[in-house]
Amino acid sequence: MTETLSPELEAVVARAAAAAPAFAATRPEERARAIVAVADSLEAHRDELVAIAMRETGLTEVRLAGEVTRTAVQLRLFADTLVDGGYLGARIDHADTDFALGVRPDIRRTHLPVGPVINFSASNFPFAFSVMGGDSAAVLAAGCPLIVKAHSGHPELSDATAAVATEALAAAGMPEGTFQLIHGREAGVSVLKDPRIKAGAFTGSIAVGRLLADIAASRPAPIPFFGELGSVNPVFVTADAIAERAAEIAEGFLTSVSGSAGQLCTKPGFVFAPAGSALPAAIQTAASDFPEHRLLDPRIARSFDERRNAILGSEGVTAVLPGGIRFDEAGHGWATPTIVSVPLDGFRASAEALAEEAFGPLSIVVEVPEGTDLAAIMPEFFEGNLTGTLHLSSAEASGETANAGELRALVAALSLQVGRVLFNGWSTGVAVTPAQQHGGPWPATTNDASTSVGTAAITRFMRPVAYQNAPAAFLPEALRDENPAGVPQAIAPAGESKSWGARWR
Amino acid sequence: MTETLSPELEAVVARAAAAAPAFAATRPEERARAIVAVADSLEAHRDELVAIAMRETGLTEVRLAGEVTRTAVQLRLFADTLVDGGYLGARIDHADTDFALGVRPDIRRTHLPVGPVINFSASNFPFAFSVMGGDSAAVLAAGCPLIVKAHSGHPELSDATAAVATEALAAAGMPEGTFQLIHGREAGVSVLKDPRIKAGAFTGSIAVGRLLADIAASRPAPIPFFGELGSVNPVFVTADAIAERAAEIAEGFLTSVSGSAGQLCTKPGFVFAPAGSALPAAIQTAASDFPEHRLLDPRIARSFDERRNAILGSEGVTAVLPGGIRFDEAGHGWATPTIVSVPLDGFRASAEALAEEAFGPLSIVVEVPEGTDLAAIMPEFFEGNLTGTLHLSSAEASGETANAGELRALVAALSLQVGRVLFNGWSTGVAVTPAQQHGGPWPATTNDASTSVGTAAITRFMRPVAYQNAPAAFLPEALRDENPAGVPQAIAPAGESKSWGARWR
Repeated sequence: MTETLSPELEAVVARAAAAAPAFAATRPEERARAIVAVADSLEAHRDELVAIAMRETGLTEVRLAGEVTRTAVQLRLFADTLVDGGYLGARIDHADTDFALGVRPDIRRTHLPVGPVINFSASNFPFAFSVMGGDSAAVLAAGCPLIVKAHSGHPELSDATAAVATEALAAAGMPEGTFQLIHGREAGVSVLKDPRIKAGAFTGSIAVGRLLADIAASRPAPIPFFGELGSVNPVFVTADAIAERAAEIAEGFLTSVSGSAGQLCTKPGFVFAPAGSALPAAIQTAASDFPEHRLLDPRIARSFDERRNAILGSEGVTAVLPGGIRFDEAGHGWATPTIVSVPLDGFRASAEALAEEAFGPLSIVVEVPEGTDLAAIMPEFFEGNLTGTLHLSSAEASGETANAGELRALVAALSLQVGRVLFNGWSTGVAVTPAQQHGGPWPATTNDASTSVGTAAITRFMRPVAYQNAPAAFLPEALRDENPAGVPQAIAPAGESKSWGARWR
Repeated sequence: MTETLSPELEAVVARAAAAAPAFAATRPEERARAIVAVADSLEAHRDELVAIAMRETGLTEVRLAGEVTRTAVQLRLFADTLVDGGYLGARIDHADTDFALGVRPDIRRTHLPVGPVINFSASNFPFAFSVMGGDSAAVLAAGCPLIVKAHSGHPELSDATAAVATEALAAAGMPEGTFQLIHGREAGVSVLKDPRIKAGAFTGSIAVGRLLADIAASRPAPIPFFGELGSVNPVFVTADAIAERAAEIAEGFLTSVSGSAGQLCTKPGFVFAPAGSALPAAIQTAASDFPEHRLLDPRIARSFDERRNAILGSEGVTAVLPGGIRFDEAGHGWATPTIVSVPLDGFRASAEALAEEAFGPLSIVVEVPEGTDLAAIMPEFFEGNLTGTLHLSSAEASGETANAGELRALVAALSLQVGRVLFNGWSTGVAVTPAQQHGGPWPATTNDASTSVGTAAITRFMRPVAYQNAPAAFLPEALRDENPAGVPQAIAPAGESKSWGARWR
């Protein structure tokens, strides 16, 4: 399966491979400075970058300017994370002559960068999940040379962002080959197959993600592939929550569905509400005059138009807000949000047509008859998802109402199938924080033990290595007794092993 | 690809799936008690189990009795690990109204069990990597229902071990379906393909491991597959180390190669020593009258015989200790250790015949001319390995000798390709400890971010889930402010985000 690369791609991969030892050997604070320099430079070039992005993606200036801030903030968060050193997972077992299984050697374990990584950019976050987005920040923080495959939807922005980043990284003294940009899906696939590449990251559709994951898994030497794919993000709203604050829920829902024209992997695609509730009417009341929003590209627009027609044409589906889509002469689609409702029975009958993600400003309210086992809905209709949401009344939040058992069962069912469970909020707008989990079982991701947002994302590009009876002179700094950088070290002293388990007899 | 299971297997998988919520909901101390009860019961049945194992595997009584202890100790270590709770990786981000990207919600992240897991047993560790071995201990500690596929080499022992474990788990109140044993490779493959199974573990050959990993990756919903496969565990010995303690090195080497008839994934398969050194002579001096040792089964014996003949017949190969193998009437092979030497040039010329693992009591001393770039040997001849070893003199251990730079480069090269780097020791005898790393890049494992020995092994069978703005009543216990079990919680307080990265400007 190994292929000969074109001379240009061969040079790219060779540069990344050559940079790997030198980049891995940079000190954490050197990489932190470089990453912060990239963040600062992106913000300094915000206006020109946003102007290109508006033209290429149709996203609004406010949204894109905010996305630059987010991108810069997450780079800075990774800078602090990598210097704090907790992500190294340093563990030290002292030698133990009185070990339960004979003499225990001194063993010390840390995480090292895996080597060159390819990251495939997303269409819908031209900054935050693209050239210098979250995955790229994690790769660079980990100390792995980075090759980014630009998304075809914003090639000019990708080049401009890459120019800013390349200059900042070089000025910060990072080795040549630390970061490179390539264009074209075939080029990306060829690089993913190259034995010098040690991991892949991707944000995009289920179909393309599966294709790439299969390539990574079927290489002569398989590599980990971290794809963040599709999600419909089910929401459950209780009768009491609607009784308490129908208008607030309806407004939050519409804001979440319509933002960025619904082109977000965390858009709430389904809302399960009691049959006959006031929610549909509250949605109609909350609906303002939505301005038309251009969809990212003509292909996405045509696909949304088809999905929207199929959903509107399904048995039992009623339009709550009809919305619409209009095509301009360039083939771009301009959409306003569509909200439909369907009884649970109708959803069951048309699940094949309805349950799949509709990428764009559309969401489906499913009307659930009283007495339905809410916890059974997730496994009946859905595979893995990035998020699942509950809206409860203030009384229900106490966990002491008559339906508390049912609600706990629903939380447990969501926990089995999603990466993030939300309460009384909306899943769009993923906070970039240490505890964030942006992942979930297939097909939300290709690898549900990982996250692509938050500081835990860095561990995707590292590999544990243990050192046994190593002289201090040959140990990584994080594993030395004197611990010059003060990284967290989990220490297992001698003399503990003979009491292991004794507490549990 | 989803297949209909036989009625028996359908019942097994259905029981495991049904047990998943109840087992996941057991308290850590309940699972700890159950695991310790299994450990105690295995030790109580040691004599009868070892007698069966001796007959089925040909391994010695001392080795097998020690393996029972090891198996019990690792179960007890996991019991303490799971109650201590560090493996949950609990992270709490407090809500932050002054967050760099607007309001940050309260986000709390922990790890939950993935669901039913299938574990394929190994031939060469009938206890420690079989029915109740390390992988099984990790699966049960994580709270995942376990299906073990018995190894065909010790079916009776597998049944006997399963009976002991089943009784102990039931007596400890674990749900029915928490643990089940199946026999037969086809049965194992069918279970691995079932959508209710959420992860796989395996210890065995590269060929079978690859087959199973490919099945796991190509399911309609792919799952993680943790295979520990082949390894040749290169050793590098410096001239000064030989000058200092040739006899000690030779003795340790022979003990490591001959133990368990060399049928260990950590057997040192190659020793790189300076050309013309005293090591081969020291090996001959150290060689005692090795008793014949039966190989595990006739297939392994035939395969070892072929590999041994091919190696002895390769150009440039000289026998240091010829050793041998004799077949009895039942087809079993009885072996004594074979040590050969070959110049680096000869190794290079015959690398295809020589570099592959020889599973059995055989190792190859490669004589390296002065001036050879030792760090270049690893990438030239080897893929991923479980271990790599250096033997240094006491002066060299200071890191201040003239060749310190060369040695550091070698350590760096080993760190890129192995899971554990050893100094002045031997790779067999893997300590079961918190910092252990038993893994490595392909083909040492199918998943080099994981370990199959040591407490970090538990994380393979868990998945992170975040809760956003969850009322306390709906949070997992480990994420509550009052933290009743006292598990480690990494807390990110409000007010920090605006200074992220500021240190690095």
